[in-house]
Amino acid sequence: MDLLQGVILSPLKIIQHPKGNVLHALKQSDSNFHTFGEAYFSTIAKGEIKGWKKHRLMTLNLIVPVGAIKFVLFDGRDESSTSNQFSEIILSATDNYCRLTVPPLVWVAFQGVDDQLNLLLNIANIEHNPQEADNRPLEQIVYKW
Amino acid sequence: MDLLQGVILSPLKIIQHPKGNVLHALKQSDSNFHTFGEAYFSTIAKGEIKGWKKHRLMTLNLIVPVGAIKFVLFDGRDESSTSNQFSEIILSATDNYCRLTVPPLVWVAFQGVDDQLNLLLNIANIEHNPQEADNRPLEQIVYKW
Repeated sequence: MDLLQGVILSPLKIIQHPKGNVLHALKQSDSNFHTFGEAYFSTIAKGEIKGWKKHRLMTLNLIVPVGAIKFVLFDGRDESSTSNQFSEIILSATDNYCRLTVPPLVWVAFQGVDDQLNLLLNIANIEHNPQEADNRPLEQIVYKW
Repeated sequence: MDLLQGVILSPLKIIQHPKGNVLHALKQSDSNFHTFGEAYFSTIAKGEIKGWKKHRLMTLNLIVPVGAIKFVLFDGRDESSTSNQFSEIILSATDNYCRLTVPPLVWVAFQGVDDQLNLLLNIANIEHNPQEADNRPLEQIVYKW
């Protein structure tokens, strides 16, 4: 599926090293970086789904350095060219090492894919604040997981 | 051992969740945060050591969300109250989940501790630039690993 309006997928470099690799995440000079608010990790067990959540102010920069995570985005914006569309992508440290930038007002849910650890880093433009986020139960935005 | 002058150890929260935990890393409002330059990961295999490296401009914010990593710091600053001292600490996602802030001009080396993946996130105040970093072979700063 195509990306939703304003969503950006940026391939990231992995620099191989015999003692342990280096994996890029985000630079302040990256064209789609604006401000730093907070960085935090989230883990998700295989098959489990966290979501739906929609931020009214936060732009997410999602990176998966360990395991694989499936992200499903739903465009609830009336003014968007991709209004009411879904978009899905699997970010993986081994197969698809990219940064997924999600603008405000897009619904997000994500599911663990690997048996082992699935780790997500979000580098957000503002700090976590439950006041600016809406949550809906999974079944309220119907998607065939 | 005590921390070297200007080095800060900040305990971080882990929010337990049955689907997968949330692990704090860094907020812009944290008292020892200044600017965002770059975030990148480094992995280190058990027993392997990366170092020594000294940054002339970069302040490191080191976080270990997976596994455990031993950091050894050596104070090569003439003006420091801890000049020529070593300091060691093991950061671990399970036993000692903290952020280690390392100011410029401190030598750093680190060693993988766990059998499985050891993952380090560095949120630095400037972008990676080999021009502002000095490297020395491990044996040039003698430490009993």
